[in-house]
Amino acid sequence: MKKVDAPRSLPAHRFPLNPWRLVEREFCADDLGVSETLFAVANGYLGLRANPEEGRPAHSHGTFLNGFHETWSIRHAEEAFGFAKTGQTIINVPDAKLIKLFVDDEPLLLSTADLENYERVLDFRSGLLTRDLVWHTPSGKRVRISCSRMVSLVHRHLAVLTFEVTMLDEAAPVVISSQLLNRQDGEEEYHESDVSLGAGTDPRKSRRFDHRVLQPRLHEDRDGDIILGYRCATSGMTLACAYHHVVETSLPYRVETSLAPDLAKSVFTVRAEPGRPFRLTKLVAYHSSRGVPPQELADRCVRTLARAREDGVESLFAEQRGWLDRFWERSDVEVRGDEPVQQAIRWNLFQLAQACARTHEQGVAAKAVTGAGYEGHYFWDTEIYIIPFLAYTTPELARRLLRMRWHMLPTARKRAGDLDQKGALYPWRTINGEEASAYYAAGTAQYHINAAVAFALKRYLDASGDIEFLAGEGAEILVETARMWEDLGFYAVNGDRVFHIHGVTGPDEYTTVVNDNLYTNVMARFNMRYAARVVELLALWNEDAYQALLRRLDLDPAEVDAWTEASNAMYLPYDEELGVHPQDESFLDREVWDFASTPPENYPLLLHYHPLVIYRFQVLKQADVVLAMFLRSDQFTLEQKRRNFDYYDPITTGDSSLSACVQAVGAAEIGYEALALEYFRDALFVDLADTHGNTSDGVHIASAGGVWGTIVFGFAGMHDSGTSLRFSPRLPSDWDGLSFRVQRHGSRMIVELDATGCTVTVLDGNAVPLSVDGVLVEVPAGSTQRIESPAATA
Amino acid sequence: MKKVDAPRSLPAHRFPLNPWRLVEREFCADDLGVSETLFAVANGYLGLRANPEEGRPAHSHGTFLNGFHETWSIRHAEEAFGFAKTGQTIINVPDAKLIKLFVDDEPLLLSTADLENYERVLDFRSGLLTRDLVWHTPSGKRVRISCSRMVSLVHRHLAVLTFEVTMLDEAAPVVISSQLLNRQDGEEEYHESDVSLGAGTDPRKSRRFDHRVLQPRLHEDRDGDIILGYRCATSGMTLACAYHHVVETSLPYRVETSLAPDLAKSVFTVRAEPGRPFRLTKLVAYHSSRGVPPQELADRCVRTLARAREDGVESLFAEQRGWLDRFWERSDVEVRGDEPVQQAIRWNLFQLAQACARTHEQGVAAKAVTGAGYEGHYFWDTEIYIIPFLAYTTPELARRLLRMRWHMLPTARKRAGDLDQKGALYPWRTINGEEASAYYAAGTAQYHINAAVAFALKRYLDASGDIEFLAGEGAEILVETARMWEDLGFYAVNGDRVFHIHGVTGPDEYTTVVNDNLYTNVMARFNMRYAARVVELLALWNEDAYQALLRRLDLDPAEVDAWTEASNAMYLPYDEELGVHPQDESFLDREVWDFASTPPENYPLLLHYHPLVIYRFQVLKQADVVLAMFLRSDQFTLEQKRRNFDYYDPITTGDSSLSACVQAVGAAEIGYEALALEYFRDALFVDLADTHGNTSDGVHIASAGGVWGTIVFGFAGMHDSGTSLRFSPRLPSDWDGLSFRVQRHGSRMIVELDATGCTVTVLDGNAVPLSVDGVLVEVPAGSTQRIESPAATA
Repeated sequence: MKKVDAPRSLPAHRFPLNPWRLVEREFCADDLGVSETLFAVANGYLGLRANPEEGRPAHSHGTFLNGFHETWSIRHAEEAFGFAKTGQTIINVPDAKLIKLFVDDEPLLLSTADLENYERVLDFRSGLLTRDLVWHTPSGKRVRISCSRMVSLVHRHLAVLTFEVTMLDEAAPVVISSQLLNRQDGEEEYHESDVSLGAGTDPRKSRRFDHRVLQPRLHEDRDGDIILGYRCATSGMTLACAYHHVVETSLPYRVETSLAPDLAKSVFTVRAEPGRPFRLTKLVAYHSSRGVPPQELADRCVRTLARAREDGVESLFAEQRGWLDRFWERSDVEVRGDEPVQQAIRWNLFQLAQACARTHEQGVAAKAVTGAGYEGHYFWDTEIYIIPFLAYTTPELARRLLRMRWHMLPTARKRAGDLDQKGALYPWRTINGEEASAYYAAGTAQYHINAAVAFALKRYLDASGDIEFLAGEGAEILVETARMWEDLGFYAVNGDRVFHIHGVTGPDEYTTVVNDNLYTNVMARFNMRYAARVVELLALWNEDAYQALLRRLDLDPAEVDAWTEASNAMYLPYDEELGVHPQDESFLDREVWDFASTPPENYPLLLHYHPLVIYRFQVLKQADVVLAMFLRSDQFTLEQKRRNFDYYDPITTGDSSLSACVQAVGAAEIGYEALALEYFRDALFVDLADTHGNTSDGVHIASAGGVWGTIVFGFAGMHDSGTSLRFSPRLPSDWDGLSFRVQRHGSRMIVELDATGCTVTVLDGNAVPLSVDGVLVEVPAGSTQRIESPAATA
Repeated sequence: MKKVDAPRSLPAHRFPLNPWRLVEREFCADDLGVSETLFAVANGYLGLRANPEEGRPAHSHGTFLNGFHETWSIRHAEEAFGFAKTGQTIINVPDAKLIKLFVDDEPLLLSTADLENYERVLDFRSGLLTRDLVWHTPSGKRVRISCSRMVSLVHRHLAVLTFEVTMLDEAAPVVISSQLLNRQDGEEEYHESDVSLGAGTDPRKSRRFDHRVLQPRLHEDRDGDIILGYRCATSGMTLACAYHHVVETSLPYRVETSLAPDLAKSVFTVRAEPGRPFRLTKLVAYHSSRGVPPQELADRCVRTLARAREDGVESLFAEQRGWLDRFWERSDVEVRGDEPVQQAIRWNLFQLAQACARTHEQGVAAKAVTGAGYEGHYFWDTEIYIIPFLAYTTPELARRLLRMRWHMLPTARKRAGDLDQKGALYPWRTINGEEASAYYAAGTAQYHINAAVAFALKRYLDASGDIEFLAGEGAEILVETARMWEDLGFYAVNGDRVFHIHGVTGPDEYTTVVNDNLYTNVMARFNMRYAARVVELLALWNEDAYQALLRRLDLDPAEVDAWTEASNAMYLPYDEELGVHPQDESFLDREVWDFASTPPENYPLLLHYHPLVIYRFQVLKQADVVLAMFLRSDQFTLEQKRRNFDYYDPITTGDSSLSACVQAVGAAEIGYEALALEYFRDALFVDLADTHGNTSDGVHIASAGGVWGTIVFGFAGMHDSGTSLRFSPRLPSDWDGLSFRVQRHGSRMIVELDATGCTVTVLDGNAVPLSVDGVLVEVPAGSTQRIESPAATA
C-alpha cells in the first residue's frame, strides 16, 4: 500500500546533487538526529555519529563498537517459563570526536555562529567526512576551520581526525580542547525528545541504564598516548580507547593534558597569526573484548597508534581511498538518467561498506554501528538483506557473517532445548548469542530466522562455490536448523501425511503466533531440503567429511530422510477461489483493516493500537507472502505471484523499513514498473528523507541492502539457482541505463541494461554461462556480450 | 484428565474428623504455609492468616484488607501500545495477631516447645479460631495457654483476640508482649522458599516492593487505644489500625506501652500464681480508604473499639454465632454417608462466608483475604464461581458484588477505548478498576470477562427477581458489555451473514489469542441476547426508565437490533465428523500434547514449558467448552455434551484450580457418576490436601464456590431458566443422601436427595413451582413435597 506520499529526495538547496558525495551546504539544527546518522563514518566495527567536533548541538552523541554491550536481567511484567532472561544493549563508548575551539575565549557553536561559509561532505570514494567553514567570531574576526574525520576501512581499530584552524585577517589567542569523554555514564546522553526511552511504547528505541555501565579501570598518559580503560559492570566486556596528537604549525603553542576516569583532555593554547594554520591530527584507537584485561587492550591501542603514526596520515588516507576504489570496482551501481537516484544509491552502498568492512565475525546490527536503535542487536536482517549483497560483491565478508552464526550454534542448541525442540534455534535478536527478545510474539516466535540463516548460506554458496565452507560450518548449521524444523512441525492429526507448522510468527509482525504461515512453511521446506541435499552431496563428495559430520552431530541418516519427507509433505495454504496463498491458515478469515478510517498520523499502527487489535485484522507491517515469492521465486508461478501481490499490496502498510524493497522486487517481477520504482525510491530514501521518522536512531542498513537487492534481483531480474544464472531485465523506463557489478565463482562481471537489451562483460576468472530472457550465452573472461531484449528484437 | 492421584483427604491422626470444625491435634512445622491458610479467619474485608500468636514459626505472615493496595508502574520488558500500565498489589497491613509469651523469661515457640497438649480448632458455627495447649517450660513448669481469634462477620472493621495464661503447678514471672507490627516494610515478610518472588517464573505469586510502601502518618495512644496510621507511598490509600486491651485477672501485673512508627507494643508483666489465670482480650480495629486522612481513620478505629468494649466480648461472640447460624440456615449442605466429605464441604462453605460476609462493594479476590497470591486481584472468579452461590443463598451479597462491577463501568469504558472498542471492557485482573494484567495473551485477551459479568447478573436476577436492579445498574452493565461484543465481532469477509469473534482467549489459558473460541462466542451471544431482552423488557415495563436509559447511555434502539442480529448469526465451531465443538476454529488441527511422555513433575505445564510450546498443542489448563456447556446448558444436546466431554476430558490437565468443579458438573450431567465424584473431591480438597501445592498463597476461593456449584448444579441438577426451576438429581451412589438449602424469589427451600427421589420443603415466601426429572410440582410455603425418581418409580 502506498501511503500518503512523503518527499523522497534530498532538498537540493541544502544538499546539492553529487554522484559521489553527500554534501551539506547549510547548517541546520532542526534535524540533527537525522544528519548525525546520514554523515556518520564507520567501518563495521567502529562507528562515529556525525556529531560536530564541538560536541554541541547534538541530538544523540554516539560512538559504537560492534557487539560491545552491557547485559541486564530482563524483568518481565509477568514471567513465564523460557522467556528471554538476558537483555543486551550496545553501549556508547567514550567520545573521541570532541575537539572544542575557542577564539578570543569565545567558543565555536554552530547553532549560533555567524558563518560565512559552511560545507560538510561525506565522500564515498575518499571515505572521509570533511567540514569546512569560515566563522566570524563575536569579536569580528574571521577564522577558517577545516576538519576531516575518517574511520579506517583498512585498520579496524583506528579513526583519524584532523582539525585545522587559520585566522584569516587578524591575530587571536586560540584554544583547542581535544577530548575523550565517557558519555555513557557521564553527560546526559540523549536529547530531550528521547527522555521517554524505556518507559515509552516504541520498541525500536534503545534503553537507558540506571547503573554506571563503564567501570573505570585505567587512565594513563603513555608518552602522549592518552588512554582510558573500562569494564562493563554486568557483561564484563572490556574496553580501552586512546588518542595521540600530531601538531603541524609554525605558530607558537603549548599543550596541557589532564586525565580523569571519565575524561581525558589535551588543551592547546595557540598564539595564532593570520594566514598561518594550526593543524591538529588526532589518531584514535579503540580495542574491546569479552574479557581481556583493559590494561592489555591499552597495549593494543598503543600499538595501533604507533603504527598509524609510522604510516602517516596521507598514507592512511590513501589506503582508505584504495580500499574504496576496490569496493566500488566490485560493488558499484550506475543509473543513467536519474542523478538524485544515482547519488542515493551510492550513499546506500557506501553505508553497506561502512557496515560490513571490518565486521569480522560479528553480525551487522539493525543500525550497523551508526546508532543505538534496536540496542545494537543482530536480527535476520544480516542474512536476508545484507549477505546476498556481500555474496555477489565481497564473498569473504559474507563468509565471515555466516561464521558468526556458526559460532552461535551452542547457544542456539540450548535455546532450542528451552523451547522443547531438537536441533538449534537461532535467537530472534541478540548480540552474544542468547535470545534477547523480550516479547515472544514478535520475537522468539519468529522461528523463520533459522531458515534465513540457511538461505544466506545458499546465497553465499551459489555465489562463491565455497564447498569447503559448506562441508564444514555450513553443513553443521543446516543439520541443526533442519532438525529444529522437522521436530517443530507435525503430520496432520487426521492422519493425512501433510506436514504442518503451528504457533509461529512470520516476517509480518502485524499477525503473530499463527498456524502454517506460508513464508515459514516455504522457507522451512527449503531449509530441510537443502540440508538433506547437502548431507547427501557430502556423502558423495567426501566420505571422510561425511562420516565426521555424522559423528560430530550424532546424525542418523534416517533423520535426513525425515527432512525430505517432511519437505515433500509440507502444507502450503492456498485459497482456490481467490487463487491466493493465505499468509497463514486463517488469514483470509480475518476482517480487513479499515484503512479508509485510519488517519495518516496513526501510522505506524504499532504505536497507536494494542497488538491484540492489530493482530485481529488483515493488515501487514511488511511483506510476508511477497517475500517468500522473492526468496523462493521458482516455487510460484507468475500468475500466482501477480495474484498474491495484488492481494497483499493494498493491505501492506510498510510500517517496517524492511518492506519497501521487497515490494519493489515483487512489483518488478510481475511487471508493475511504476510501482516497483516507487517502492524502490521508498527504500532508497528511507534514511535520506527520513521517511520512517527514526533515522536519528541510525541507518536502516537492511533497507540499504534491499536497495541493492531491488536493483539486481528486481530490475535486472538476476536469478541464481546454484547451477544456472539468469537475468530477466526490467529496466525502469525513466532510466536511460543501469549497470552493476557482481562476481560469481570468482568471475567478476559488469552487467549493463539499456532500453533495448543487456550487455555482460566478464572481467576475469572463468567464462560465465548465463541466460538473459531465456537466451543462453557463455561469456568468456575478458570479453563482452550483447543480448538484445525480446521486445527490441521482435 | 485425572492425573496421578494425590491424596484427597486430611490425615486423620492430625486432623480428626468433625462435621462442624477443622481440628488440628498436632503442631506441625512442615506445612506452615498451608495451615496458615486453612485456619485463617476473615470476613471478606479483613483477613488474618493463621500465624501463631508468637509470630514464629511462620511461612508467610499476613493481615489483609480487601482492596487495600499499593500501585506501581508496570515496566514491560518490551513495551507496546495499550499494555497495562498500573500494577496493583495487596499490602500486608500491620500485624495485630502478635502476642508473645515469656515464662521465666523463656519464650514460647511451638516449633521447639515441649507440649503436653495441643489443639487448634476452626469452628464453623462459632466463627472462632481457638488454640489450647499445655507447655512444659524449659524450667519444667506447666502452663496452660488458651487463645481465641475472631474476625467479626458482623462488624466489618473488628477483630477480637483473647489470650489466657494459667500456671498449672508453680508460680512464675510471666511476660506477655502484645504488638502491632508493620511487616510490609519492617521484618522480612516471606519465608526463604519465597525469595524468588518476582524473579521467579510463577505468575501466581505476589510481588515484592523495593520501596517503603506504608508511609507512617501517626502513632498514638488515645486512652489505651493504641493506633498506627499510614499512607501508601504510590497508591495514596490510607490506613489506621488500633488495638485496645482488656485484662481479667486476680494476679498482680503492670503494663508498659511503647509506640513507634512501625511498632506499637504493650508489655504485661505478671506475677503468676498457679491456678489463677491471666486473661487478655485484644480488641483490634482496621479502617482503610482511598484517601481519607489517616487521622480520620484513627477516629473511626477509636469508635469501633469503643463500641466493641461497650458490647463486650461475650456479646460479640454471640453475634458471631448468630450470624453463622443464619448463614448455615441459608447455605448448609448435608451429605449423609461420607463424613470426610461432609467436613470438607462445610470448610469450603465457611470459606465462602469468610470471603463474602463484609466484602460490601468490593470484589472477592482470587485468594479472598487469606493470602497475597495473585496480588489480591479480582478476576472473573467472583462472577462465575462465587455469585451463583450467593445468588441462591444470600442474594443481597451477590447484588453488592454486581454493584462493584457497575462502579467500574467508567474505567471499563476507557479500557474498551484503549482496545479500540465501543462500550465497556472489564479488566481481566484489577483492584481499582484499571487493567493490571501484564501479560495480555492470558489476560486482556480474555474478553469473556464481559460475559461473565452479564452471566452473574442473570444468575442474580433469576434467583432474586430484583427487577429494580436490572432496570438500573443491570441494564447499564448489559448495554455496555453487549456494545463491546457487537463491535469486537464482525460478519464473515466472504459475505456470509455469519458473526465471528477473532483474536481472543477463552477460559483455557493453555491456548491463547484464537479465532472463534467456542466459549467466548456462546457467552457473547448470551450477553448480547440478554442485553437486548432486558432493554426490550424495560421498554414494556417502565417507559420512563427505558427513555432514561436511552439518554444516559446515548443508546439507539437500532443498536439493540444489531445485538440480536449478531447473536442470531453467531458462529459456533462444530466438527461434523467428530460430533465435537472445537474449542476454537483451529483447535482440532493442533497436535495433541504428548501426555505419555510428560512426567508428573512437569505439571503444571506452565512452570515447565514456554507458552509458545504449550499453545501449539491440544492441551487444556482448565475446562473451556465444558464450562460453556455448564453455563449455557440449554444450548447443547445431551449427546453433544457427552461427545464434547469425552473429547476434552482426556486433554484437560486441571492445572488450574478452576477446572475440577466444572469437569465435575460436566461429568455429573452426562451420567459419569464416579468421575464426577472424583472431580468433586479434587475441588473439595484443593486446599485441604494442598493438591495444587500453593494453598500457602491463600484459599482457592473460586474452587470453594465451585464445590457448592457442583453439588447444586451438578449432583442436584438444578437449572433455573429465569422462568422455571428444574432439578435433575444425580446423587452419587456412595452417598446415602444429600440436602441443601437455596432461596429463590424470596422463598427459602430445603432440597433433599436420596436414592429413590427428592424431597422439597418450602420454608417461607411464596409457593414454588418446579420440576424434578420432568415432573412438575408446586410446593406451597410451609409444606414439603416428595418426588420419586423415575428409576425408583419405574
